[in-house]
Amino acid sequence: MAGNTFGTIFRLTTFGESHGEALGGIIDGCPAGINIDFEAIQKELDRRKPGQSAIVTQRKEPDEVRFLSGIFEGKTTGTSIGFIIENTNQKSHDYSHIKEVYRPSHADYVYQQKYGHRDYRGGGRSSARETACRVVAGAIAKQVLKGIRFSAYVSSVGELSVNKDYTELDLSLTETNPVRCPDLQMASKMENYIKEIRKAGDTIGGTISCVIQNVPVGLGEPVFDRLHAQLGKAMLSINAVKGFEYGSGFEGTKQRGSQHNDLFNPNGSTQTNRSGGIQGGISNGMDIYFKVAFKPVATLMQMQPALDSEGNIVQMQGKGRHDPCVVPRAVPIVEAMAAMVILDFYLMNKVVHS
Amino acid sequence: MAGNTFGTIFRLTTFGESHGEALGGIIDGCPAGINIDFEAIQKELDRRKPGQSAIVTQRKEPDEVRFLSGIFEGKTTGTSIGFIIENTNQKSHDYSHIKEVYRPSHADYVYQQKYGHRDYRGGGRSSARETACRVVAGAIAKQVLKGIRFSAYVSSVGELSVNKDYTELDLSLTETNPVRCPDLQMASKMENYIKEIRKAGDTIGGTISCVIQNVPVGLGEPVFDRLHAQLGKAMLSINAVKGFEYGSGFEGTKQRGSQHNDLFNPNGSTQTNRSGGIQGGISNGMDIYFKVAFKPVATLMQMQPALDSEGNIVQMQGKGRHDPCVVPRAVPIVEAMAAMVILDFYLMNKVVHS
Amino acid sequence: MAGNTFGTIFRLTTFGESHGEALGGIIDGCPAGINIDFEAIQKELDRRKPGQSAIVTQRKEPDEVRFLSGIFEGKTTGTSIGFIIENTNQKSHDYSHIKEVYRPSHADYVYQQKYGHRDYRGGGRSSARETACRVVAGAIAKQVLKGIRFSAYVSSVGELSVNKDYTELDLSLTETNPVRCPDLQMASKMENYIKEIRKAGDTIGGTISCVIQNVPVGLGEPVFDRLHAQLGKAMLSINAVKGFEYGSGFEGTKQRGSQHNDLFNPNGSTQTNRSGGIQGGISNGMDIYFKVAFKPVATLMQMQPALDSEGNIVQMQGKGRHDPCVVPRAVPIVEAMAAMVILDFYLMNKVVHS
Amino acid sequence: MAGNTFGTIFRLTTFGESHGEALGGIIDGCPAGINIDFEAIQKELDRRKPGQSAIVTQRKEPDEVRFLSGIFEGKTTGTSIGFIIENTNQKSHDYSHIKEVYRPSHADYVYQQKYGHRDYRGGGRSSARETACRVVAGAIAKQVLKGIRFSAYVSSVGELSVNKDYTELDLSLTETNPVRCPDLQMASKMENYIKEIRKAGDTIGGTISCVIQNVPVGLGEPVFDRLHAQLGKAMLSINAVKGFEYGSGFEGTKQRGSQHNDLFNPNGSTQTNRSGGIQGGISNGMDIYFKVAFKPVATLMQMQPALDSEGNIVQMQGKGRHDPCVVPRAVPIVEAMAAMVILDFYLMNKVVHS
Repeated sequence: MAGNTFGTIFRLTTFGESHGEALGGIIDGCPAGINIDFEAIQKELDRRKPGQSAIVTQRKEPDEVRFLSGIFEGKTTGTSIGFIIENTNQKSHDYSHIKEVYRPSHADYVYQQKYGHRDYRGGGRSSARETACRVVAGAIAKQVLKGIRFSAYVSSVGELSVNKDYTELDLSLTETNPVRCPDLQMASKMENYIKEIRKAGDTIGGTISCVIQNVPVGLGEPVFDRLHAQLGKAMLSINAVKGFEYGSGFEGTKQRGSQHNDLFNPNGSTQTNRSGGIQGGISNGMDIYFKVAFKPVATLMQMQPALDSEGNIVQMQGKGRHDPCVVPRAVPIVEAMAAMVILDFYLMNKVVHS
Repeated sequence: MAGNTFGTIFRLTTFGESHGEALGGIIDGCPAGINIDFEAIQKELDRRKPGQSAIVTQRKEPDEVRFLSGIFEGKTTGTSIGFIIENTNQKSHDYSHIKEVYRPSHADYVYQQKYGHRDYRGGGRSSARETACRVVAGAIAKQVLKGIRFSAYVSSVGELSVNKDYTELDLSLTETNPVRCPDLQMASKMENYIKEIRKAGDTIGGTISCVIQNVPVGLGEPVFDRLHAQLGKAMLSINAVKGFEYGSGFEGTKQRGSQHNDLFNPNGSTQTNRSGGIQGGISNGMDIYFKVAFKPVATLMQMQPALDSEGNIVQMQGKGRHDPCVVPRAVPIVEAMAAMVILDFYLMNKVVHS
Repeated sequence: MAGNTFGTIFRLTTFGESHGEALGGIIDGCPAGINIDFEAIQKELDRRKPGQSAIVTQRKEPDEVRFLSGIFEGKTTGTSIGFIIENTNQKSHDYSHIKEVYRPSHADYVYQQKYGHRDYRGGGRSSARETACRVVAGAIAKQVLKGIRFSAYVSSVGELSVNKDYTELDLSLTETNPVRCPDLQMASKMENYIKEIRKAGDTIGGTISCVIQNVPVGLGEPVFDRLHAQLGKAMLSINAVKGFEYGSGFEGTKQRGSQHNDLFNPNGSTQTNRSGGIQGGISNGMDIYFKVAFKPVATLMQMQPALDSEGNIVQMQGKGRHDPCVVPRAVPIVEAMAAMVILDFYLMNKVVHS
Repeated sequence: MAGNTFGTIFRLTTFGESHGEALGGIIDGCPAGINIDFEAIQKELDRRKPGQSAIVTQRKEPDEVRFLSGIFEGKTTGTSIGFIIENTNQKSHDYSHIKEVYRPSHADYVYQQKYGHRDYRGGGRSSARETACRVVAGAIAKQVLKGIRFSAYVSSVGELSVNKDYTELDLSLTETNPVRCPDLQMASKMENYIKEIRKAGDTIGGTISCVIQNVPVGLGEPVFDRLHAQLGKAMLSINAVKGFEYGSGFEGTKQRGSQHNDLFNPNGSTQTNRSGGIQGGISNGMDIYFKVAFKPVATLMQMQPALDSEGNIVQMQGKGRHDPCVVPRAVPIVEAMAAMVILDFYLMNKVVHS
């Protein structure tokens, strides 16, 4: 398993470099007979694509997906779904400044060391451009899982942090602002802050919170494939992610058991939800919620020292158009990965009883 | 994949309930010709076993491992390694108080819902007793990876937190105290605190930090099987874990790129290590370090309301001997999972070049 | 995947050397709530065990299976099922004659070359003793698949071949004779022939035919995991197997399409069944039938030249008690592997529709 | 695993329907730094493509492969290799005659039953058109395995059978005739026979033999992933295949052990090779050889009864251009699957010793 497949039953395998001819993927294990809403898929891609607002990179990539198989007369057939996203302008770039240079906190150096040969154009396979394919598969997973709601949103940018619990927020407001933060006052502050950061040629980190609602009881496969373990892996596999916590998370470690335990209601639900909707690695029917940490983007629009292939430290500066902060565009990626994980466990759970 | 296998090349599959006849596992994909140090394996099990100090559960379980195959004349043969750990006293217990009761923040309820039938004795498969098998496999992985050093330690208990970076600590002191904290002053405070908690019939959470040193450049399989993504999954698959962060983690999200980037030295190492030894999902040769959050143990030695199978809320109290805080005993488990992950990627990386 | 796991959903992982301490396995993915008939499992093991008749090896191995987990109060719990079969007399043997000698047409030489280190006692991991674990898992698979009937039988021994189609045989007669051939006249000839072969210190090959009845339509996962492809792999993974054919098999290649096609009945069944119950890799509801070729056992009770580890050709002769012909004891193994394959696809097929 | 992925380390995942927009695949796990010979890949595709001679279907499909990723500056990068083959004329066909009709001995009926919804155009996913993707991946596998020679050839068409062992044939003659049979006299007979069959609107079966030379000792992963078991699965996964045998195969079952055993030479090679280059599931350095049985094509250019979706038996006849005999075009497919299997085990074997 050389790392380009995700999932056990609902499986996504992807390919594609940032500036190669095309990206694409194959979804295997999608149930048959699902009516595909192509517009909804494109809408998810549009949430991720560059150029959508003033606070994201201004690159132009239409990110139009073309399905090649597995869907017939508008419905999935149960066979593998192939799709591609052409890179429309990959030939016009100039990469001479990075061909022999390893940018700090980028993957250039380790790719060169691991593989001995790399596609240096725009980061090649290590670019987050690859996540467009995840968004396609996630959008299909969401369509299979009608009734389960995935709501990710930006919960912090730098030190600016939403101080409310998700239950106190109106998550339908997430898409009303370019930051994708449902706390509108905070969203406005964040937007201004990102603009300042961009002007300084700098970047800033942030966090995304995600809530999954209406998940049936029973999803997750202990002992190793606990639901939150796979969710964690899914999130940590997204570019720039440095941490994952669910339910009470790191803060919960400071509590006593008598404070932390979630007491039952007679119907099996719980009065509190510090468990984050998962017990022993299995969904318990309560809301699942988690938080994902994204580091600041490594490409700066200012001079910084880098390493060249001869072992010299050289000065370089990012060219082209880059994101000052990734979290607004990463919101649909978090949702997509979450949807794939939930669908995979949903399908696995069907085989527990013969 | 019903969840009881971990790893791709070096694969551990486990079985066993808390109070069943025996636990055990099969390790497949262990390289041939490795001299096995059986004492070292037992020593790791002893670090995890109950009854080792005054601040852990006083249950008696010798946790002696018996190898049944795959090792001949002291060396691995390349075939599958089977092992079991007999449960010596599983028949003496009385489980009537939990047979029809779902304990709060335990997996009783979700197992019943998912499988329709469960082994209620001591938590059955959902008990952390299962992790003994992980320690066995991890101990073998460490022996294959001679030269790579795995150092986990307790970095917080409740609000008591080591405020030093691992580079400021003498990690050889970890095993000198029952808390497994190398900051001896803090260790002493933690020990007293855990004793207080235990007296109150309560429990407390904590965190474990882990450092992996001398890892070669190149381990990790993007895009989905990034090294830190698999490390995260490994840790999140351990009982009671609520969060994982590596390198700068959640704190790093507050920084600017110009502060966060790790600048190169001419030899490819970096001046700082906010990346935590991993770039783009691939080890870069610097120390790998991460932190794992453990919630407080759910079993309390005080009355609390629980749910019975008829939908009644009933009062119950933990019986037997339980840990007031899991982190001291979880230190070898964290190391074991880390060793398995690193070995797996180490073996996978051998096939990159034909 | 180092080769000791079989299956995708219903997964068997095994360990154990011919003369090690014990053999065993872990079954993962068995549905929960299945009532286990332990006697039926032991009965299958008894069909495979040595010493059961005058025409098989006279070794004494009770082959008693001990279940360690995953079954509680007589029913499967959905967690992994661990089991072991102790090797009761492994210490009494003398292996000095094979320690440094590679027997012709045995795996001694290739194991030594591949792994550099091998357990030479009785063939170690390459011994067919390992198949006892498959019989255990297969017996459980049969119990899950109540209603589907697996009927293997010996269809040839050397040149002695049953000339009737399975539809002309009374398959309930298979167990009435030590050869396991339902054509009683032929069974008697085969039995005498095997006795002659044994007297001569020689061995003989044979074939096993297998019929699977009442399989639902829809099992199989094209394009690579066609039902017959996985059945073929399962059979070819059994010791001494050299070939596999299903339906019209090799003979069918001589026919014209106009002779070979199976014409439909209005209810979807077919008038003939040259397809062997499988179309395009998917079961079509007709009987599945196939044939498996077993080579003659390589261990002879007569002198033959072998190779020693120094590169000398030396004379050697089998010691102990060996089978003159494996097919009678292999009948339950063929059924076991078939049952595992069918159950695996049965479970996989449940996820096709969401 | 929903069936569209083959391999463990070197993994091919494919998509595409016979008359969809395009076919394609993703190769994951290909070693980095391999110089790709694109012409050699196209040449393999040309051996498989329709219209290449008078005895195969006269359909026009250029089968040009377009690589989209994973190869940079002519060399593999170690990342996933995506490729597509556009279906250039998929819109011009008329499928009204098969839309509601299940052809005898085709997969139409089982696809409809399994998935509830199918792409009926030209057999959809069940068409052998899918194997073009296998040829692409196999051609790359061959380039990685420089020095290992894969030689498949037609060994029988109907009753016409090459009566010589492969060692008596000049395998370099295979490509000199449209049948792909290196026995030129027999090739000529076969060619005429196939033409007769075609004139009669009928089809005929056949066999392909394959020899793999210069395989290193040690490939194969017992106990389940024996080299020949995986080869068998690979072959049985090809459309129309009904049987597989290697080495002495079904004929070997008639022999005594004293006749069948391969005696060693002092250098570890063997004097005979009834084992077919594999012992205990592991390559022994001798030539690997096997035979594959192909049934006659089910589509006939004559009237035959079929089943419609209402349960009526209706008369139908094949339209368009179909192969009277598949074996000539299947030769490169057999080689491709063999190359993928050998490469996969070659890479797996690298991890045996740490």
